[in-house]
Amino acid sequence: MTHLPDSGPLPGVHDLGYARLDTDRLERTGDAEVVYGAGKTPVQIVELLRTLHSTHGGRAALATRLSPEAQELVAVELPEAVVDPVGRTAVLGTVPAPSGTVAVVSAGTSDAPVAAEAATTAGVFGAGVELITDVGVAGLHRVLGVRERLAAADCLIVVAGMEGALPSVVGGLTGVPLVAVPTSVGYGASFGGVAALLGMLNSCAPGVTVVNIDNGFGAGVFAARVARRAAPIEVKEQ
Amino acid sequence: MTHLPDSGPLPGVHDLGYARLDTDRLERTGDAEVVYGAGKTPVQIVELLRTLHSTHGGRAALATRLSPEAQELVAVELPEAVVDPVGRTAVLGTVPAPSGTVAVVSAGTSDAPVAAEAATTAGVFGAGVELITDVGVAGLHRVLGVRERLAAADCLIVVAGMEGALPSVVGGLTGVPLVAVPTSVGYGASFGGVAALLGMLNSCAPGVTVVNIDNGFGAGVFAARVARRAAPIEVKEQ
Amino acid sequence: MTHLPDSGPLPGVHDLGYARLDTDRLERTGDAEVVYGAGKTPVQIVELLRTLHSTHGGRAALATRLSPEAQELVAVELPEAVVDPVGRTAVLGTVPAPSGTVAVVSAGTSDAPVAAEAATTAGVFGAGVELITDVGVAGLHRVLGVRERLAAADCLIVVAGMEGALPSVVGGLTGVPLVAVPTSVGYGASFGGVAALLGMLNSCAPGVTVVNIDNGFGAGVFAARVARRAAPIEVKEQ
Amino acid sequence: MTHLPDSGPLPGVHDLGYARLDTDRLERTGDAEVVYGAGKTPVQIVELLRTLHSTHGGRAALATRLSPEAQELVAVELPEAVVDPVGRTAVLGTVPAPSGTVAVVSAGTSDAPVAAEAATTAGVFGAGVELITDVGVAGLHRVLGVRERLAAADCLIVVAGMEGALPSVVGGLTGVPLVAVPTSVGYGASFGGVAALLGMLNSCAPGVTVVNIDNGFGAGVFAARVARRAAPIEVKEQ
Amino acid sequence: MTHLPDSGPLPGVHDLGYARLDTDRLERTGDAEVVYGAGKTPVQIVELLRTLHSTHGGRAALATRLSPEAQELVAVELPEAVVDPVGRTAVLGTVPAPSGTVAVVSAGTSDAPVAAEAATTAGVFGAGVELITDVGVAGLHRVLGVRERLAAADCLIVVAGMEGALPSVVGGLTGVPLVAVPTSVGYGASFGGVAALLGMLNSCAPGVTVVNIDNGFGAGVFAARVARRAAPIEVKEQ
Amino acid sequence: MTHLPDSGPLPGVHDLGYARLDTDRLERTGDAEVVYGAGKTPVQIVELLRTLHSTHGGRAALATRLSPEAQELVAVELPEAVVDPVGRTAVLGTVPAPSGTVAVVSAGTSDAPVAAEAATTAGVFGAGVELITDVGVAGLHRVLGVRERLAAADCLIVVAGMEGALPSVVGGLTGVPLVAVPTSVGYGASFGGVAALLGMLNSCAPGVTVVNIDNGFGAGVFAARVARRAAPIEVKEQ
Amino acid sequence: MTHLPDSGPLPGVHDLGYARLDTDRLERTGDAEVVYGAGKTPVQIVELLRTLHSTHGGRAALATRLSPEAQELVAVELPEAVVDPVGRTAVLGTVPAPSGTVAVVSAGTSDAPVAAEAATTAGVFGAGVELITDVGVAGLHRVLGVRERLAAADCLIVVAGMEGALPSVVGGLTGVPLVAVPTSVGYGASFGGVAALLGMLNSCAPGVTVVNIDNGFGAGVFAARVARRAAPIEVKEQ
Amino acid sequence: MTHLPDSGPLPGVHDLGYARLDTDRLERTGDAEVVYGAGKTPVQIVELLRTLHSTHGGRAALATRLSPEAQELVAVELPEAVVDPVGRTAVLGTVPAPSGTVAVVSAGTSDAPVAAEAATTAGVFGAGVELITDVGVAGLHRVLGVRERLAAADCLIVVAGMEGALPSVVGGLTGVPLVAVPTSVGYGASFGGVAALLGMLNSCAPGVTVVNIDNGFGAGVFAARVARRAAPIEVKEQ
Repeated sequence: MTHLPDSGPLPGVHDLGYARLDTDRLERTGDAEVVYGAGKTPVQIVELLRTLHSTHGGRAALATRLSPEAQELVAVELPEAVVDPVGRTAVLGTVPAPSGTVAVVSAGTSDAPVAAEAATTAGVFGAGVELITDVGVAGLHRVLGVRERLAAADCLIVVAGMEGALPSVVGGLTGVPLVAVPTSVGYGASFGGVAALLGMLNSCAPGVTVVNIDNGFGAGVFAARVARRAAPIEVKEQ
Repeated sequence: MTHLPDSGPLPGVHDLGYARLDTDRLERTGDAEVVYGAGKTPVQIVELLRTLHSTHGGRAALATRLSPEAQELVAVELPEAVVDPVGRTAVLGTVPAPSGTVAVVSAGTSDAPVAAEAATTAGVFGAGVELITDVGVAGLHRVLGVRERLAAADCLIVVAGMEGALPSVVGGLTGVPLVAVPTSVGYGASFGGVAALLGMLNSCAPGVTVVNIDNGFGAGVFAARVARRAAPIEVKEQ
Repeated sequence: MTHLPDSGPLPGVHDLGYARLDTDRLERTGDAEVVYGAGKTPVQIVELLRTLHSTHGGRAALATRLSPEAQELVAVELPEAVVDPVGRTAVLGTVPAPSGTVAVVSAGTSDAPVAAEAATTAGVFGAGVELITDVGVAGLHRVLGVRERLAAADCLIVVAGMEGALPSVVGGLTGVPLVAVPTSVGYGASFGGVAALLGMLNSCAPGVTVVNIDNGFGAGVFAARVARRAAPIEVKEQ
Repeated sequence: MTHLPDSGPLPGVHDLGYARLDTDRLERTGDAEVVYGAGKTPVQIVELLRTLHSTHGGRAALATRLSPEAQELVAVELPEAVVDPVGRTAVLGTVPAPSGTVAVVSAGTSDAPVAAEAATTAGVFGAGVELITDVGVAGLHRVLGVRERLAAADCLIVVAGMEGALPSVVGGLTGVPLVAVPTSVGYGASFGGVAALLGMLNSCAPGVTVVNIDNGFGAGVFAARVARRAAPIEVKEQ
Repeated sequence: MTHLPDSGPLPGVHDLGYARLDTDRLERTGDAEVVYGAGKTPVQIVELLRTLHSTHGGRAALATRLSPEAQELVAVELPEAVVDPVGRTAVLGTVPAPSGTVAVVSAGTSDAPVAAEAATTAGVFGAGVELITDVGVAGLHRVLGVRERLAAADCLIVVAGMEGALPSVVGGLTGVPLVAVPTSVGYGASFGGVAALLGMLNSCAPGVTVVNIDNGFGAGVFAARVARRAAPIEVKEQ
Repeated sequence: MTHLPDSGPLPGVHDLGYARLDTDRLERTGDAEVVYGAGKTPVQIVELLRTLHSTHGGRAALATRLSPEAQELVAVELPEAVVDPVGRTAVLGTVPAPSGTVAVVSAGTSDAPVAAEAATTAGVFGAGVELITDVGVAGLHRVLGVRERLAAADCLIVVAGMEGALPSVVGGLTGVPLVAVPTSVGYGASFGGVAALLGMLNSCAPGVTVVNIDNGFGAGVFAARVARRAAPIEVKEQ
Repeated sequence: MTHLPDSGPLPGVHDLGYARLDTDRLERTGDAEVVYGAGKTPVQIVELLRTLHSTHGGRAALATRLSPEAQELVAVELPEAVVDPVGRTAVLGTVPAPSGTVAVVSAGTSDAPVAAEAATTAGVFGAGVELITDVGVAGLHRVLGVRERLAAADCLIVVAGMEGALPSVVGGLTGVPLVAVPTSVGYGASFGGVAALLGMLNSCAPGVTVVNIDNGFGAGVFAARVARRAAPIEVKEQ
Repeated sequence: MTHLPDSGPLPGVHDLGYARLDTDRLERTGDAEVVYGAGKTPVQIVELLRTLHSTHGGRAALATRLSPEAQELVAVELPEAVVDPVGRTAVLGTVPAPSGTVAVVSAGTSDAPVAAEAATTAGVFGAGVELITDVGVAGLHRVLGVRERLAAADCLIVVAGMEGALPSVVGGLTGVPLVAVPTSVGYGASFGGVAALLGMLNSCAPGVTVVNIDNGFGAGVFAARVARRAAPIEVKEQ
């Protein structure tokens, strides 16, 4: 017995052999599929970006978790793409006009890749983005110094590793919806981000929600959806 | 040496001896403090509800996790309060006029208490609420049957125990921001809700965020904040 | 003291020095032993396949978990063998005429290796096999589209990583016996497949059984045993 | 804000207020819904059994996980029901004529409740059932003594706590499809059945599948589905 | 065979049959033994307190983890003892003149018992104690308001449950040696204090040490040892 | 369908309905079966002890894990039995003449029940027993004081909870075979004995083996088997 | 500040700079120290073996966990040493005349390295050793075939990975003291040997003790101590 | 959308692009920031050391967790720095005159890197340091031999891997404040230091505090703070 051929073509699917693009997703959820780069070859990523871009009418196509090799090939083959080596992302095509604001707040310099992935994703998914880095809780003056900028956002993404305390501190300062992203930054009993994840799930500040460890992409999608449907700030007089 | 007297009174705090109400929170975050009933006596809960109500100008005061005894005393002492035995909550005072809509979706009848806590909380925090129960993934026709109602909400709360698969299914059907609540419903290797929690954190549907096990209150606060700042649906022509 | 010589030859055992083939297993259980390739050298694997083949009268011999090097050597040394680079298997000899049908369903493209291993195994162990890939729960239309093919099988193998929700959805659509295989696909709090494993063990659909993480082989053996003893479908009028 | 009324009646659902029976399941999967007794009052259980029985044309209705109080009330209110205090089950109505055979094997006397639940479930779901108890691996002569009875079954359910070794031993003796059920029997580092669960997932015998800890019901459903579609033994000349 | 008589009397041990007091410990470590009340009867606790008191020359004897029944009997039988129902402690005899200062800081009202145990212990072990309660990180103004009192202590004990973020915030504000005590306050994925414990072990503020969950006693002993050997503040001009 | 009758009588088994005694075990392993009292009624325990005693020619029969009620009934019904309320055991019949010596060493008074169970078991299984209690590592003078008695034993059982450090200290002082028993004594992050179990498995002293948490019985059986086959000390001149 | 010089020389210690040999251990425990090779350079291992050998009067010196490079250098530099590439050990000097017998039993070919380490260690520590390999529980005929050889040993070492069931089966067949060694062989939910470790700790056969995962050395030391003090078999007439 | 520019310069922060130095920390806590070398390039580390040194008036600047490459570049570029290859640290500038004494005690040679990191850190943070190595509990004579040196310190740092028993033994010998550091030394069920961490958290010796696994730096900071505020020993006559 040999490897069986799979079931035939399906509507709403663009089959590339090694991957199938769910071209129906845009209609179903309002957002297009993206390229998750981990485990894919640079050549595949370039082709997937091109295909997503062309099958969605020039809409910005996003690729995440790109290896340095993939970033390099994308830069060569798709010179109009914007590659971010910090967040390991590439964007091909024009991002939407921003609607609402997502503020991405991170605790330490090691959290930068996850924060950048979240920021780029939120932008591609239609939100305006503000990045506020290096405001760890061991230096409270920095958090307090950006308090007004936090309160002005429509949705907050708070990125932290180690003990993951920043969302509790930020969540106590403002009532803006807050998505916490634990990162795998830490060592010993941080268990690859589990300590930060548990800290965020148990936050004493009400209204904090959490995504998977290092999942900047998921936080970006969620926050953009919140921000872009938010009414302009001056309307929110409750 | 005996038990030392504590530090003196503080601004923004209402001290009842056994608890201190953070009366400054409303100004800081836009939402008032609530009474977490677990570990408090019925008499304390009644007093706390009364105090919250009177110090916040008649605004609706919420108490959660009430024992049957506490529910009974609240009903007797505060007859104008609305007590919900399913969600184990009590609300004293008029809830705000609803702004935006939160849809609370639950998988099984055992998830009802958590779903009810989330629904009541979202209402007290200013959102309109729709409750859609018993739409477990083992009977997909029910989920598909409510698809339009899901898409019409400003924020979704999806409550499920056991394997916690419902948020993935719902998240694939719509692009509405979705907060997942794992419940401790299950047995054996469900580990008191850990299986559902992990399932939700690893959801293959993008844009799913998660709160702590059985934390209907936290989901309700978050979702209400999203919903009440959402622009009316007809405006969202992006 | 040096390394002691081991006990002498035993009946029902073919001793190759670095491994012993349990040649009695076929009689005991109706199925022959297979070559588990992990940790063995390409040369050993070739010899083991040849020996299994010759000591079992030309019956198809299966090797699993083959490294690229092992696949290459098998292709060169045993040109009549069928090597599957996706499932990392090799089969030497004629597979049995298929009896009954196993449908192997997988959630995402990353689950393909485990699904292929399961499919090849089920074929070698005597069942007909149908492969249905890329039907993740975040795009329900695909699952619903193959519903009749699922119902027509004698046993289902459902392969999924991340939250492992697919078995619950499939198990709610049909009463065919269902074996779930969690894969190590995922990141962060997926813990190398533990999230999917727990999700499957806690499935709300009755009649779902589970094998170890990435254990496509075990699922294939089990499902083939179920399928090949199933009576033809038209007889099952209960 | 008070507890919101839920969504209206749905097709394929029988609504009892505190629970909804999925009356469509029989058509969808070939098996009717059952009453999971944990967390339900004796009065509710009696009503649910009656309703299941009447809405399914007198087909046998099953209730599991019944407290002593529930067993007692069922015996009084539904005298025609068969109540099993060991397996904590009740069956109302005539079980189907058995088709195929499930052998339920258990390791120790403490595993009896889970084994009985599995046996009763398999019977209600249409299989013939044979119960073989107390064949722990520390006394191999007992396992070996029932070898022929094991080989004659169409599906095996093997129930064990502590180290959960019995499925490996049984699975090495026969090629009959085998579902292993870990039980929470044990102490110390058995962690409420986790040791047995891990043992079974890692069984060195191929073709062993596993269900959740103490989940005799799930194993019974699965095994009955396998057994009742098995061709009569004399046909299986492969 | 019956229960064997144990080995005979030993120097430095006062044998009461059901317990042995290590009367040599005072000389060895500078601190006397205490009565750990969990699992002991009220009568035993009274006798142990009396014995400790008399064998150590009237030095203050401490008992911890006292049940309400034990507290009551101690109050009746040893009227000169000071019983603290919050911290569940009793102290018989005069506490030493305080040397140095320990500040005990706690996050929420539910952390009060652990904070009180730490405070009483530190006092009995020779330190002056200041108690600062209810300064959770979700209301930063309170932490910032006590900043000077924190900086004036010789050692800090910071008690917190849930996500355990308070030590990171306090540790960023001052260089005083800081012992963090995680409490079992929380629910769901707090896992009985594990979330707080991990948070504290991974604190981003340098110089934070941790004791076991709810171990106010251990923190009190440690902090008192630090405080009482501290030079008066005016000397520390480094 | 009702609860099926089980398989018929078996050789080497004495069937009491609710339990089966493995009367063949004595011949197979040299040791008779014992009564594990947990989960059995007092009446059953009395009957099992009587039966074991009579079917094994008056040999001492052991029952472990007896509740206070079971201890009481045994004392009334079997006045010749020796009941130990500390170790929760009962012994009916004459213990064998002791052969070799087992020394049972325990760390704290809370470890006494497990140590007593180990000591009684070792005696019933044929060894001489010496009990050395309360030699925790926080008071090293006591361990050092019994060093010669430790070295004179044929096998050591070392019982400890909390951090489980005693086996490492004892194992560094002598070369006698050492079985470590972790106990569930402790709190917080002791996780019911897991901390002690891990400590013992990772002991830096070579030649330490471990049994399950609180498993004094298992340690007693093992140590007695070692001790009773040990040659008299004067022969061991190596 | 730079790296401080350490404390001076100590009696009973041979200082090599990068390691200190505890030359007093032989007198204290009857057994000499060994070289744990992991993390040491080949040159260091050669020097340590030489030093141990010369400081202990030619007694056999053992090194374990040797990398291929270390094995090679030992073979070149110490040609009289016996190097075992399977068990990754080297022995320099004459092993003692064997006293008593240790039987090392292993389940699969992948367990061979741990079994070989245990066997070599037991020999160096003074016992006679018999190696019985490849007797996994999935082929019971092999275990039963060596039953007499098992019963003739003074101590058993049973090595198994995956579900770790072999000690339960062997422990039910004989009353010889049994040390179980879990190995890290397995995948998925075997968690690097944890499944086997838990299985062995929860063995239903009484008298099974356990060592750390892959710790063949520890089992060898322990078993040799038991065997070499065992009286010749003909004396043990109990 | 491309990577957004971050927020502008902040007071008390020295921005180097890839990192920001918290230059305000010295004033806030009395101690300057340090360079955590993991994940930074050698060039960055050299620049950070230089910057810290120059912005803090020549005060000793510390870098930890340096790779061999980083150590080499520091030695070349900053020849006046003191590089310690054991502890993987570099110190640039004059350490403060020592105040008080920290004794760093370690169990085995493998714990040396963590002990050295702790010792260097304590020195840079202003304490006198004494290093006492290789005093594992399996050779108690060594611990007892240094008892007076332990009692003479102002704070103890006790470093141990495997079962982590050393702090319990040391803590029972002296009343000096004791910080325990678990190391990741061990294998199998040591779980990368978790066994040692749990052992230390559950120490039976009162007054033991713990830091994260391998966190020599944190222990050094804490201990130095205790030691440098300690009054000279002759004053401590309590």
